Amino acid sequence: MGMTITEKILAKAAGLDSVHSGQLIMADLSMVLGNDITSPVAIKEFPKFGKKTVFDNTKVAMIPDHFAPNKDIKAAEQCKCVRCFANEQNIKNYFEVGEAGIEHALLPEKGLVTAGDVVIGADSHTCTYGALGAFSTGVGSTDMACGMATGKAWFKVPSSIKFVLKGKFNRYVTGKDLILHIIGQIGVDGALYKSMEFTGEGVASLSMDDRFTVCNMAIEAGAKNGIFPVDEKTLAYLKEAGAKTPVIFNSDSDASYDEVIEIDLSKLESTVSFPHLPSNTKTFSNMPKVKIDQVVIGSCTNGRISDLRAAAEILKGRHIDKSVRAIIIPATQKIYREAMHEGLFDIFLDAGCVISTPTCGPCLGGYMGILAAGERAISTTNRNFVGRMGHVESEVYLASPHVAAASAVTGYITDPNAL
Amino acid sequence: MGMTITEKILAKAAGLDSVHSGQLIMADLSMVLGNDITSPVAIKEFPKFGKKTVFDNTKVAMIPDHFAPNKDIKAAEQCKCVRCFANEQNIKNYFEVGEAGIEHALLPEKGLVTAGDVVIGADSHTCTYGALGAFSTGVGSTDMACGMATGKAWFKVPSSIKFVLKGKFNRYVTGKDLILHIIGQIGVDGALYKSMEFTGEGVASLSMDDRFTVCNMAIEAGAKNGIFPVDEKTLAYLKEAGAKTPVIFNSDSDASYDEVIEIDLSKLESTVSFPHLPSNTKTFSNMPKVKIDQVVIGSCTNGRISDLRAAAEILKGRHIDKSVRAIIIPATQKIYREAMHEGLFDIFLDAGCVISTPTCGPCLGGYMGILAAGERAISTTNRNFVGRMGHVESEVYLASPHVAAASAVTGYITDPNAL
Repeated sequence: MGMTITEKILAKAAGLDSVHSGQLIMADLSMVLGNDITSPVAIKEFPKFGKKTVFDNTKVAMIPDHFAPNKDIKAAEQCKCVRCFANEQNIKNYFEVGEAGIEHALLPEKGLVTAGDVVIGADSHTCTYGALGAFSTGVGSTDMACGMATGKAWFKVPSSIKFVLKGKFNRYVTGKDLILHIIGQIGVDGALYKSMEFTGEGVASLSMDDRFTVCNMAIEAGAKNGIFPVDEKTLAYLKEAGAKTPVIFNSDSDASYDEVIEIDLSKLESTVSFPHLPSNTKTFSNMPKVKIDQVVIGSCTNGRISDLRAAAEILKGRHIDKSVRAIIIPATQKIYREAMHEGLFDIFLDAGCVISTPTCGPCLGGYMGILAAGERAISTTNRNFVGRMGHVESEVYLASPHVAAASAVTGYITDPNAL
Repeated sequence: MGMTITEKILAKAAGLDSVHSGQLIMADLSMVLGNDITSPVAIKEFPKFGKKTVFDNTKVAMIPDHFAPNKDIKAAEQCKCVRCFANEQNIKNYFEVGEAGIEHALLPEKGLVTAGDVVIGADSHTCTYGALGAFSTGVGSTDMACGMATGKAWFKVPSSIKFVLKGKFNRYVTGKDLILHIIGQIGVDGALYKSMEFTGEGVASLSMDDRFTVCNMAIEAGAKNGIFPVDEKTLAYLKEAGAKTPVIFNSDSDASYDEVIEIDLSKLESTVSFPHLPSNTKTFSNMPKVKIDQVVIGSCTNGRISDLRAAAEILKGRHIDKSVRAIIIPATQKIYREAMHEGLFDIFLDAGCVISTPTCGPCLGGYMGILAAGERAISTTNRNFVGRMGHVESEVYLASPHVAAASAVTGYITDPNAL
C-alpha cells in the first residue's frame, strides 16, 4: 500500500523504507524550536540527558517572542535564561528582540525550514511549517529538551485526513476562512492526532501566506500536523528565503486516508469563530450584530505581509470607529519594515491604529491589548478560549484580517463586502 | 518687591494683584490631567465632591499611556474605567490609544497648554509644561478629583531658585545633560517645593525639546515646578500647536530668589546618572566602564522628535552590540509618524532596534523592556530608583539620547564623542 506525504517524510527521518499510521518510530530532527516561555523549562531539563552540548547548534532555534520585549520581571528572567543558554551553547539560531519576531513567521522567513524536514517546537503552532511540505509539530518542553540533547524524537505515525480543494476564493475570502470553516465542520478534535493533508487543484491558488495560516491552525482541529504538497510557489518561497535544498515527497495515489473531504473554495464565505471555541463558526448570513471594543491584527496565524496588506486594503481612506482600539502587530522585523515601506503604516496610522513591535502579545493574553471584563475583541489570532486575551468575562472572535479591519471601521463585526 | 514669573501666574489665577512665596492661595485651573493609573483613583473620589459633571469638559484631559495598550487585566480595567468616565462626562481631551501617546508630550503637541496657564496633573512629571511658560505641577489623585469637580486647587506659592544660563552646548550636550548636571549639583531635594526658573542669554539656544526635558525633570530635584520665559521659539511652538493665546509673564528684576545659580552651557559635558538616584551623576572623565544589557530611548523626558533624531544621528550606519536590546519608543503617534517619514525608523531597524508604539512602558517598570536581576539599562528616562525598571537587583543609568545610542553600539556606557 502507498504512503502519504507525512508517512514518507517520517519514514525517511526514521531510516525506514516505509511506515504506517500507528507505528512508533524514532526520527531524526531537522530543527528543534523553543520560545521564551517553553525554552526555560527545556533548559532546566536538558542536563538530565547527560549531554554537555546540544546535538547540533545549527539545528536548535530559540526565539523570545511571547512576552518580549520583556513584559515583566518574570518574562525578563525567562528571556535571560534563554539568552544565557544560547550564548553558552553557541546556538546559531537564537534571535534577540530587534532581529526576531514571532517564531512561526520567523523560521520560514529565515530559511530555517525546508520541504521534507522534521521539525519539533515547544509551541503548539509549530505545525505552521507544513505549508512548506515539512512535517512539523508542537511538543512539550521535555520533548524539546530531549530533542536538543539527542537530535531525535519518537512519534506515533499519524493517520491522515485528505482535504481536496477545488475552485478559488471569492474576494475577501482567505486561508483563514478556509481553516475556520474546516474547524467549524469537523470540530476542535475533528483531526485528533491526525495529519491534515491539503491537496487538489485548488491548492495552486492559495498563496504561501494562506497555506501558513491553514497549517498554523491545524492544531485547533486537534491535528498532529497540517501539510501541503510542494509546488512552484513553495519552491519560489524556499529559494527566496535561502532555505536548504527541499526534499519533495508526494502522497501515493493508493495511500490510505481515514477520510476524504472535498471543499469548493468558491463556496466559502468570510467566517468568524464565536466564543469560546474556534469551531463555533458563523458566516455573515447567520450572524447576530456583535459590538466589539478591540481589534487585533497579527500573530503567527495572520501577522504576515499579505495579512497587513489585506487590513490596509480595508482601512485605506477610512478611520476606525471611536469606540474601538485597533492594534496592528507585524509578525517579524522584516514584515514590519516591508509594511512601513509599502505605505501600510501610513494607512494604519491615518485610520487611528497603533502599531506594535513584533510579539505574540495579546494573542495569549500576554500584553499589548489585554481585555477587561465584558470587553470583546475580534482578532486574527488562533484561539478564543475563555480568558484567552484577558479577563474570563471577555470574549474573542476569530476572523481574517479583512473582517477584523472592516469591524474596526464600524465597531461591529462586519462583512468587508458590506462596507 | 517684584514677583517671579511663577508668582505672577499664580497671582492672576488666584485673582490677586500680588502673591508672595509661602502664601496659600486658591487658583483657577486651566487644565486638569490624569492618566490610566491615576485617573481611576480620581474618578472614584469624584462623587464625594457632590458634582454630577466636571467643571469644564474642555479643561480635563485623560490619557491612557502608562500601561496602555493594556498590559494586563488590571490595566485593562483601569483603562476601561477612564474610557467610561470620559464618555459619560463627554471629556473632550480623552485620547484613546491610536490617537494618543505619552501625556506630557501629547498635551503640548495638541496645543492644550499655553503660556500663563495653571495646570495640575496626577502625574509627577506634569511640571514639563513649564517649558511653555505655564505653571504646571504634579498632584495626587484626590487633588485631581477636586480639580475636576471645582476647577480650582490650592497652592502654597513656591519660592524660586534662579538658574542663569549662558553660552551654548557643545556637540552632543543637550537639555538632558543640563538637568542631570543641575540635579547632580543640588541633589534630589535641592529644590524641594521650589520653583526652578531658567533664565539668561543661554536660554535662547535651547530648543523647545531641550526645555521640555529640563522642566520635566524639575521634580527630580524636588521642585514644585520648572519654568522658562516665553521667547520667539515658545511662541512659534504654541502657534504651530494651535494653542490658545499665550499670556506672557516675566520675572521682575527685583523679584526675590532663594538662590541664583549660574551655569555656563559650554562647560557642560555629557552626564550620566548612576544607580540609584538621578543626583548620582558622572561625566566621562570620571566614569568606570559599565556593561549594559538594554537601552531605552523614549519617555516623557526624551521621546520627542529631536531625541529620536539624536539617537539616529549616532546609530546611522552602525549596528547595536549583539549583547544589547535597544528599544525605541516615540512619545506620541505624531512623533512616531514624523520619525518614520524622516527615515529614522530605517536607521533604527538597520541598527537592530525594536520600535514600540507610544507608551510610558519600561520607564516605570510597566512593560516593553523590564529588567531581570543583575541586568543594567541605560535609559533616556527620568528615574533610576531601585527596581524602577524591573528587578530590585537591576540597575538604571540615566542619560541623553546621544549617550544611550552610543552605548547601544558598544554595549558599554559610551561617550558619543568617543565612537
